[in-house]
Amino acid sequence: MNTQTKPPRRAGGRAARHALRAAPLTEDKRPIRPGQRGGRYTPLTETEVARIHEAALTALETIGLADAPESGVETMTAAGAALGADGRLRFPRALVEDMLAVAAREVTLCGRDPRHDLELTDTRVYFGTAGAAVHMVEIEDRSYRDTTVQDLYDAARIVDRLDNIHFLQRPVVCRDISDNYEMDLNTVYAACRGTTKHIGTSFTDPEYVPGAFDLLHTIAGGEAAWRARPFVSNSNCFVVPPMKFATESCKVMEACIAGGMPVLLLSAGQAGATAPAPIAGAIVQAVAECLAGVVYVNAISPGYPAVFGTWPFVSDLRTGAMSGGSGEQALLTAGCAQMHRFYGLPGGAAAGIADAKLPDMQAGWEQMCSNVLAGVSGLNMVYEAAGMHASLLGFCLESLILGDDLLGQANRCVRGIEVNDDTLSLEVMRTACLGQNGVPGTGHYLGSDQTLRLMETDYVYPALADRTSPKEWMENERPDLLKNATRRKLEILASDSLAAFAPDLDQKIRAAFPIHLP
Amino acid sequence: MNTQTKPPRRAGGRAARHALRAAPLTEDKRPIRPGQRGGRYTPLTETEVARIHEAALTALETIGLADAPESGVETMTAAGAALGADGRLRFPRALVEDMLAVAAREVTLCGRDPRHDLELTDTRVYFGTAGAAVHMVEIEDRSYRDTTVQDLYDAARIVDRLDNIHFLQRPVVCRDISDNYEMDLNTVYAACRGTTKHIGTSFTDPEYVPGAFDLLHTIAGGEAAWRARPFVSNSNCFVVPPMKFATESCKVMEACIAGGMPVLLLSAGQAGATAPAPIAGAIVQAVAECLAGVVYVNAISPGYPAVFGTWPFVSDLRTGAMSGGSGEQALLTAGCAQMHRFYGLPGGAAAGIADAKLPDMQAGWEQMCSNVLAGVSGLNMVYEAAGMHASLLGFCLESLILGDDLLGQANRCVRGIEVNDDTLSLEVMRTACLGQNGVPGTGHYLGSDQTLRLMETDYVYPALADRTSPKEWMENERPDLLKNATRRKLEILASDSLAAFAPDLDQKIRAAFPIHLP
Repeated sequence: MNTQTKPPRRAGGRAARHALRAAPLTEDKRPIRPGQRGGRYTPLTETEVARIHEAALTALETIGLADAPESGVETMTAAGAALGADGRLRFPRALVEDMLAVAAREVTLCGRDPRHDLELTDTRVYFGTAGAAVHMVEIEDRSYRDTTVQDLYDAARIVDRLDNIHFLQRPVVCRDISDNYEMDLNTVYAACRGTTKHIGTSFTDPEYVPGAFDLLHTIAGGEAAWRARPFVSNSNCFVVPPMKFATESCKVMEACIAGGMPVLLLSAGQAGATAPAPIAGAIVQAVAECLAGVVYVNAISPGYPAVFGTWPFVSDLRTGAMSGGSGEQALLTAGCAQMHRFYGLPGGAAAGIADAKLPDMQAGWEQMCSNVLAGVSGLNMVYEAAGMHASLLGFCLESLILGDDLLGQANRCVRGIEVNDDTLSLEVMRTACLGQNGVPGTGHYLGSDQTLRLMETDYVYPALADRTSPKEWMENERPDLLKNATRRKLEILASDSLAAFAPDLDQKIRAAFPIHLP
Repeated sequence: MNTQTKPPRRAGGRAARHALRAAPLTEDKRPIRPGQRGGRYTPLTETEVARIHEAALTALETIGLADAPESGVETMTAAGAALGADGRLRFPRALVEDMLAVAAREVTLCGRDPRHDLELTDTRVYFGTAGAAVHMVEIEDRSYRDTTVQDLYDAARIVDRLDNIHFLQRPVVCRDISDNYEMDLNTVYAACRGTTKHIGTSFTDPEYVPGAFDLLHTIAGGEAAWRARPFVSNSNCFVVPPMKFATESCKVMEACIAGGMPVLLLSAGQAGATAPAPIAGAIVQAVAECLAGVVYVNAISPGYPAVFGTWPFVSDLRTGAMSGGSGEQALLTAGCAQMHRFYGLPGGAAAGIADAKLPDMQAGWEQMCSNVLAGVSGLNMVYEAAGMHASLLGFCLESLILGDDLLGQANRCVRGIEVNDDTLSLEVMRTACLGQNGVPGTGHYLGSDQTLRLMETDYVYPALADRTSPKEWMENERPDLLKNATRRKLEILASDSLAAFAPDLDQKIRAAFPIHLP
C-alpha cells in the first residue's frame, strides 16, 4: 500500500455526495422546472364541473352583466349579445359556445429572455408573484411601511434570481409616484429593468396605455419586435363583481388588445361579499364573468391571447375582511383550475396568500396550502404565489426569497410520482436484499448507483430551509431562517440586475420618459 | 322616531356576525369534523397502482422477508408461505390474495370516550400525533432538551383539547424513566390520564406486554371491558426494511393480538437508505412489507383489526439524514394512501413532519404540504401530523397547538366543495344583481341569508392564526404567534385533565404499578 497517498474516499460517502450535489445541475437534469404538468387533484367530479358550467351559462343568459362601455356594447351586440332595457348585456349560450370554440387554447407568455417563456397549455403549472400590495413588510422591526418603485425594482431583481418563481406580475404599488400616468410607466420600467421573466401589470386609465406601449417598443427595439414577443401582459380587472363590467378597465383592455399585449381577464370577487358565500357559487360567478370576458376579447379579435382569470377570494365572514390564507381559498383556486381544464383555456388564479402579517409559521402553512393544491390541480398561472402577507396588503422580500424554497417543494409535488421498471426498483431491491453474483446484499440503498443517480435528478434541495440535525444546528449557532433570508436578500440586491438595459437604451428611455428610479 | 332607543343594528352588521360566531357551534353544524372523506387527489393512475401492486407481489414471491421469529415462521408456513434455505419466508401471490380477502376492511379504533372513536373505512381521514421524539423543543430559549413522561402527559392533555387532532399516538419517549418496562407502562398511564382520544403506543419487549395489559384492564374496568372497546393500539415496527422481519417486534405483535389490541403494521423505510430511492420503489417495498404483515396477522387471526402502515420516509440524499418536510415525503404518503384504497384496507402513513428545528415559516410550509395532500388523498390515519420538528427528533407543544389551526384548514380542504342547487347560488346571484319584487339588488352578498347561514357551517376560523388588518395588528401591539401559542399552552396545562382517572382508580393503579407521574 502506498502510504504517500490517502485511500480514495468511498464513492457513496457523504463528502462525495455533497461535492457531487454542490455542482450546478445542467438544465436537463434539474429535478423540477417551470411548466410541469399537474392535474392529479380534482376537487370537483365531472358532473359537478358540468353543473357549474351550466349555472354560469344560465347566469350569463338571464342575469348578464351591467356597465359595459359603449365600445364593448357595440362589439358584443354585433357578435350576438343582447342589450336589455335594464342596460345589462345578456349572452345567449350559443354565443358563449361559439366564442369558446375560437378562443386561444395555447398561449405563450413571453419573457424578455426566451428561456423564461411560459407555455400555457393543458395542465402546465407556473408560479409567480402578483397583487397590488401597499405596504412593505420589514421583518427587522416588524413594521409595515408604504411601498415604492424601488421596492418593485428590488422584487423584480429577486424574482429574476429565483428558479421556482416563474414570472413577475407587479406585486406592489409604486406609492411614491403620485402621478398615476408616471406610476404606470415606472411600474413597467422598474419591472423590466429588474427581470427578463414575463411581466404582468395593469394600467390606471385607458389614456395611459399608448405611452406605455411607446416605452415597451423602445425597450423591445421597435413595435415589430414587441409584437413578435410581447413580454408584458395586462392584468385587467375587467369586471366589478357581481356581474358588472368595469367600464374603464374594459377600455384599457381594448387598448391593450389593439397594441398586441396579452390579457389576463381577472374576476376578483370575494366569497360572501362580492361573490356568493358558497365555494361552488363563487366559482360559478367567476366563471360566468370570465366567460363574458372570453366573448368580449374574441368578439374584438378571434383567438386573441387571454388568460381565464377566475380569482375568487375568500372573506372571513365574521368581519367581511379578505382571508387568502384559508382552506376555503385553496379549494376555490383548485376548483377554478378544474374549470379551466374543462374549457381547455389557459387559466390563472390566486394562491400562496398569507393572512399572517409576518413570515412566521402561519405564513408558511397558509402559503403552502393553496400553492400546493393549485399546483397539483394543474393551474397554469398561479398568481400571488410568493411574498404576500396581510391578505394581500403587505409584501415581504424575505418571504419572497423563502417562497422560492416553499415553491420548490410544491413543484416537486406537481412533478409527481414516476412509475416505470426502473423506479419500481425490483432489481435494486433484489440486489440489496439477496446480493448478486455470490456477493451478499448490502441490506441498504445508500450509495447505490440508482440512489446516486436520483440524488441529482429526483430530489429537490432547499436553499435556505434547514435540514440539519439538532446537534449540527446547535453547532451552527441555531441559524435563524429569517436572518438567513435577509442575508440572501442583501446579497442579491448588492449585485447588478441581470436584466438591466444597455446604457444607451437606458439613456434613450430616460430622455423620453419621466423615469423615477435612479 | 323614538329618540329614547337606539336604532337596531343591521342584521348583517359586523357586531352581529361576531356575536353569532362567538356562540359555540352544535356538533351537527361544525364546518369540519373527524373522519371526513378525502380522495380527490390521486397521484397515481389506476395502471400505476396496479403496477406497484404487481411489483410488491413479485417482491414477496421472489425476495421474501428474512428474520421472522420461529412462531411467525410456523404460523405463516402453515398458511402457505415457503421458508427458503436462505432463511427467508416467501409468499406465493395466492396466499397474499387469500389473506387480503379475509383482512379486516372496517376497523374502529376506540377512544376511551366513544365520541372520539375513529371509523377507519374507505377514505375517511383522521389526523393525530405519533413518533418517538427524544427532544422537547423549547421555543423561549430556542433549545432542545430530553423528553420526559411529564412531556408526554402534557402533550396528551393538549391533544385532548384540540378539535382537529383526532388521536394521540405517543409522540415522545419518556427518557427520564431508565427501566424500559417502567417506561412502557408509564407511557400508557400518562397517555391515558391525559386524553380520552384513541392512543397508540409501542412496547420495547414482548415480555412487557402482559404487564401493560394488566394496567389497561385496570383502567378499563376489567378484561372484558377492555376487549369490548380497546382504546389503545400497538404501533408496531414489525419490519426492519429492506424486507426483514423485526424479530422481537413480531413477538410483541403476537402478544398484542392475543390480548385484543389493534395493531398498526408499521413499515418505516427511508428512501435512499433502507428503501429504494425512487418514490415508486419506496412505495413498492413498503407495500410488500405491509402485505407480509397482513399475511402474518390474518394467519394468526383472520379479520383481526390492523392498520396498513406504509410509512416510507425520505432521505436527504446528500447526507442520508431523514427529511420529513419535503415534497417527496408528501408524494410518498399520498401514493401510499392510494394503495390503501386499492386494497380497501384501513391505512396510515406519516405526514406533517417538519425538518425545521423551530415552529417557523419553514415548519409551517413543511407541515402543511404533506398534511393537506395526505388529507385530500383520503389517508385514514395521518400520523405525526402535528408538533414534530427536526425530522422527528424534536417535539414542540406550541407547534402542536398551532398544528390544530393548520389542520383545521387542511381539514377544510378534505371536506371539499359541495355542489348543489343551493351552493350554485343562481337565485342568490339573481337577487343580488337584479333585485326582487321591485326592490333593487344590493349588488353584494354581505349579510345575505345564505352568507349568514354558511358563516357558521362552511367556514373554518382559526383560534390563534391572525387575520387582522395591518392597522388592527399594529393597534393590538403586533401579536406574536408563538407567544400566543405559549399562552394557550399554559392555560391548558394549568387546568385539570378531562381524562383523569377517578381518585380510587388512580390509587388502585398506583398500588399495583410503578407510576412515575406525581
